[in-house]
Amino acid sequence: MPREEDAKLSRRAWVATTSGVIAAGLVKTQADAIRLVAQEAPEGTQDPTRVPGRMVSEIGTRAPAEQPRRLIRAPALSSSSRSPLADLMGTITPADLHFERHHAGIPEIAYDRHELLVHGMVERPTVFRMADLVRFPQVSRIQFLECSGNGGGVYNRERMPTEVTVQRLDGLLSTSEWTGVPVATILREVGVRPGASWILAEGSDAAVMSRSVPLDKVMDDSLLAYGQNGERLRPEQGYPLRLFNPGYEGNTSVKWLRRIEVTDRPTHTRDETSRYTDPLGDGTVRQFSLVMDAKSIITFPSYPYVLPDRGWWEVRGLAWSGRGRITRVEVSADGGRSWADAELQGPILPKSTVCFRHLFEWSGRDTILLSRATDETGYVQPTVQQLWEARGLRTSYHQNHQRAWKIARTGEVTFGLGELV
Amino acid sequence: MPREEDAKLSRRAWVATTSGVIAAGLVKTQADAIRLVAQEAPEGTQDPTRVPGRMVSEIGTRAPAEQPRRLIRAPALSSSSRSPLADLMGTITPADLHFERHHAGIPEIAYDRHELLVHGMVERPTVFRMADLVRFPQVSRIQFLECSGNGGGVYNRERMPTEVTVQRLDGLLSTSEWTGVPVATILREVGVRPGASWILAEGSDAAVMSRSVPLDKVMDDSLLAYGQNGERLRPEQGYPLRLFNPGYEGNTSVKWLRRIEVTDRPTHTRDETSRYTDPLGDGTVRQFSLVMDAKSIITFPSYPYVLPDRGWWEVRGLAWSGRGRITRVEVSADGGRSWADAELQGPILPKSTVCFRHLFEWSGRDTILLSRATDETGYVQPTVQQLWEARGLRTSYHQNHQRAWKIARTGEVTFGLGELV
Repeated sequence: MPREEDAKLSRRAWVATTSGVIAAGLVKTQADAIRLVAQEAPEGTQDPTRVPGRMVSEIGTRAPAEQPRRLIRAPALSSSSRSPLADLMGTITPADLHFERHHAGIPEIAYDRHELLVHGMVERPTVFRMADLVRFPQVSRIQFLECSGNGGGVYNRERMPTEVTVQRLDGLLSTSEWTGVPVATILREVGVRPGASWILAEGSDAAVMSRSVPLDKVMDDSLLAYGQNGERLRPEQGYPLRLFNPGYEGNTSVKWLRRIEVTDRPTHTRDETSRYTDPLGDGTVRQFSLVMDAKSIITFPSYPYVLPDRGWWEVRGLAWSGRGRITRVEVSADGGRSWADAELQGPILPKSTVCFRHLFEWSGRDTILLSRATDETGYVQPTVQQLWEARGLRTSYHQNHQRAWKIARTGEVTFGLGELV
Repeated sequence: MPREEDAKLSRRAWVATTSGVIAAGLVKTQADAIRLVAQEAPEGTQDPTRVPGRMVSEIGTRAPAEQPRRLIRAPALSSSSRSPLADLMGTITPADLHFERHHAGIPEIAYDRHELLVHGMVERPTVFRMADLVRFPQVSRIQFLECSGNGGGVYNRERMPTEVTVQRLDGLLSTSEWTGVPVATILREVGVRPGASWILAEGSDAAVMSRSVPLDKVMDDSLLAYGQNGERLRPEQGYPLRLFNPGYEGNTSVKWLRRIEVTDRPTHTRDETSRYTDPLGDGTVRQFSLVMDAKSIITFPSYPYVLPDRGWWEVRGLAWSGRGRITRVEVSADGGRSWADAELQGPILPKSTVCFRHLFEWSGRDTILLSRATDETGYVQPTVQQLWEARGLRTSYHQNHQRAWKIARTGEVTFGLGELV
């Protein structure tokens, strides 16, 4: 992903062909080239081949100049931190940059003391310790997690902000390789009674976060997750155990999971009545809007990048759908009048983010870039007008409308929404 | 992945069925269960639901009790650190636990000052800065990297050690999502001259690590990598730029890459003549043994785990091949006389690690566990005898023979090799 400085520093014009990309003006003579390599290191730096390097270490560190950080909303008990998506590449989010959202802070829980009670409409109510759970057959899957409030900060603003970064807008999205035991395995273990149709999942944080999830869903593909990107869950991700519901709004993937109750109806907890419901334009309220619909966002170019010159640039972004695989991402460079298929980076995994990339030639004029994703159900990411019509302005959840970026003649990129699409 | 403590603590017998696994003895009464959840926290701990948790942070940290570490060979200039594979889950290696191997320490290189010279048999010798390289069309791929010396430490020992961890044995293996620009794109950019057949890749560390790689290979799937698991390369992985040759011995993926010279023959550098060659049993030497053949290793159970009781356990491990996809992993629980197919965790990606898992019932008697991988070329991971016959005892590279673990009646697991297979 080009960094802001990269884009600002680059002073070269580009030409693309279908067989590759040619950077006109990049060429220096071989004599120049060899001189550059052989030249003396400038004052204050050393030729790295002339000095012994740093020794091996038990744990790696980032380069001093590379210190990506999560964006913190507020230092409150109920708060969040957002992944720096525009600074990242590929699909995997490093665990220490995975977004976090909690309603009463991060509890401290000892692995060996943590217990999960599974009870309710089951034949054999059971308490599982972590040592029990990790013995069950294990699965690992690369999948996204997204807070349903992602994007809500700009959706219904009277005066839309334009100086919005990808991180601030959609940073409540991250992707990991999750490892755990299928909920289905554990429910088969305890024996679900006839008539059961939901579960209640309860966390052991100070908010006692509690959500209802359809039994069909958890039997299909939910995990009791204890691993993330190779390592144990991080505390802010629910250490030592979380529910992970692929493709569902993040809040249902209850962290610090201590109890699953099998029920014959949703429990209507505080966290799914006073919150995580969607007031619609017609005065009704949508509840249990659990699946995250298809969405995409261009991460480059985005605010606050500045394109230094016209010519060929690779538009880059992420697309994902809670309903399965992304099948298509299109990019528009004219505010949505015409669209071109972006290239998708395989493998395209279900309920995971996919990188899309598209070469576009910036003319130097005002330009509005948009992306829209289609998933394997045929669902197409809506325009913001379509979303406003369907859902009204009173909700801040599930805002998966197309995002727009405006490139000004100066090369400065700003966020756009209503007036741009 | 069960931890040693998990295995030691667990005191429960297991029964498996084809439709699931039943843990006999796990069941407690619902009254017990509810009492457990509701009981007072013991002295010295607090009920996490009664106290506000820790606040959000810009950068995450691991739980205090979860501190995986790389194993350092020696604090020398030419040294290595090994990934704690038995402590990890899934395929992705966290970047700070990715193995490292360098011959003169880790150089400090400034991103904005780093340059790559591409010259030799090319039409337009060119110096690329990082800002140039990140503008080219980008690709991301999940692939393994393995040092060809992996496993060499035990291969030709007269007295084979048995107290060997997976980390010590095979920890020079890690898997990441690598992001960069295809070498092919850059070579098309500079124009390869007719007759060219190899490249020389040179690093800007104090060892000036230099390796020859066939042109066909780098045109096929090699990357100029600048990203790893979403973030910029770490310094010990070549920041800001490394060559990444999927499936090739790790040393060819030259780090801190500063020069590519296109040639019509291998350069026969110090690093591919005095090292990284394989003396064979017949007095000849194998040079440019570049591809990592198919291999697998059981990571659980392995030394120093202790199985606390007989019954059903999930054998877990990793398999990989430098020639493409793994198609089959078999596990033997009788020293190689009979084999059963393990389950492979999809998606199975080419030149990447794949998790395999296999339920096996430990009888409580002395047991020898083995795994063997087959790749899409039909190649089957050899026994150590086959490797000794083919390669002799004088080499410590490319030791991809089957690894064995012996479970003693006490449940203690130790490493095995010759006498076990």
